[in-house]
Amino acid sequence: MLKLYIGNKNYSSWSMRPWVLLKQSVIAFEEVVVRFGDDFSAPGSEFKKTVLALNPAGTVPFLVDGDIVVSDTLAIAEYLAESFPDKLLWPTDKARRAQARSACAEMHGGFRAIRKHCGMNIEADLALQGELLLRDHADVRNELARLVQLWGGLLAQHGGPMLLGDFSIADAYFAPMASRLKTYALPVPSDIAAYVERVHALPSVTAWTDAARTEHDFVVEDEPYRLRS
Amino acid sequence: MLKLYIGNKNYSSWSMRPWVLLKQSVIAFEEVVVRFGDDFSAPGSEFKKTVLALNPAGTVPFLVDGDIVVSDTLAIAEYLAESFPDKLLWPTDKARRAQARSACAEMHGGFRAIRKHCGMNIEADLALQGELLLRDHADVRNELARLVQLWGGLLAQHGGPMLLGDFSIADAYFAPMASRLKTYALPVPSDIAAYVERVHALPSVTAWTDAARTEHDFVVEDEPYRLRS
Ligand SMILES: N[C@@H](CCC(=O)N[C@@H](CS)C(=O)NCC(=O)O)C(=O)O
Ligand SMILES: N[C@@H](CCC(=O)N[C@@H](CS)C(=O)NCC(=O)O)C(=O)O
Repeated sequence: MLKLYIGNKNYSSWSMRPWVLLKQSVIAFEEVVVRFGDDFSAPGSEFKKTVLALNPAGTVPFLVDGDIVVSDTLAIAEYLAESFPDKLLWPTDKARRAQARSACAEMHGGFRAIRKHCGMNIEADLALQGELLLRDHADVRNELARLVQLWGGLLAQHGGPMLLGDFSIADAYFAPMASRLKTYALPVPSDIAAYVERVHALPSVTAWTDAARTEHDFVVEDEPYRLRS
Repeated sequence: MLKLYIGNKNYSSWSMRPWVLLKQSVIAFEEVVVRFGDDFSAPGSEFKKTVLALNPAGTVPFLVDGDIVVSDTLAIAEYLAESFPDKLLWPTDKARRAQARSACAEMHGGFRAIRKHCGMNIEADLALQGELLLRDHADVRNELARLVQLWGGLLAQHGGPMLLGDFSIADAYFAPMASRLKTYALPVPSDIAAYVERVHALPSVTAWTDAARTEHDFVVEDEPYRLRS
């Protein structure tokens, strides 16, 4: 059985992606949560020790399939797409697949300012913080505009309901961004807001966010804007 | 015919990857250089205008195949692997392929400190700078150690000469890192140094670095350590 190692559901945006992908596609897997705890990203932390014993990259998520350890979100997505061809995790159309991969790769390496300033925090309400960030950070504004352009273009071209038409890896890849738009109440046009709602209504996303809200595990390293939950 | 849009050969580490991949795999393509020029990453620059006309992500490299625009290095690599299955761009063994993809995804999203402080600059000799960076930046030291661990592990496991045995996307993906190790004279164990030399001896890499050295196009934005070449 596939084993997916993940971090805290409330905070771990990278972990959310393959988890949502697996659940939404009804692929059986065992979930192993490695709780972040305090100073989790510091060398020698409990989290690091547990992860490094299996994954030398030292990060979650990672997927274990027998002897094979796949140690990065995008590699996990490609691995699953190949392993379960009948699940159509990428769009079947070549042009759409190229668009989906371009979008995921841009997410994987980009949107740095939003990732830095708007850490995923599903159970929090950080609307005031979102307004301040937009006021003070041109890079956050620019990235939000790019996200709106990217999603809006794909939705308009393919007619929705998901980015490439049917659900695909791309929607799993952007689910944590949809969550951030809500947490920080970032203003977006109505077509984008409607997509954010549709993402949140996916059973896999609901299952993840519900679990995140019952976690109650306050991780200081991921809480630049709150003293307690 | 495939068209690959790239930046300056001396500086554009992302552009180097798909170019080396295409050349080394003997896939025909037309190269279009969009020169960086001054302030190229600023909105409204000549570079930005040229790129944005074709690629809304606003970055090089991107690949144009008829109507299809593939706009990010990793997406280009996957697109080519699918389009030219006989070229075996990924390893054929499933476990090796998962390792190759994990390594490329880690490169795509990680090694931030090295990317930030040790920008690719093929024609420069920045050995002094490399020593200072190692002295002053723990994150550069940590990432160098991770790179040595990653490459060393793959080379030991698969026996070389390339990371996964035969040449694959992973070697193209790490070629700019091999170049940085030379430019900044970063100290590495002998197995790693030997791999760096083998990468530089690949005909595709030699062709790229030779072209980079004759470019003579000093881009201030990419020259934090020099006043002139
Ligand atoms: N590029 C990696 C990023 C993974 C990542 O940064 N995960 C975080 C948790 S969301 C982590 O493990 N952080 C621990 C650390 O960086 O030490 C991926 O896509 O898997
Ligand atoms: N994740 C992108 C990164 C591409 C990238 O950052 N390219 C640089 C040149 S090496 C660029 O176009 N910079 C212009 C800018 O950021 O405005 C990819 O893999 O293609």
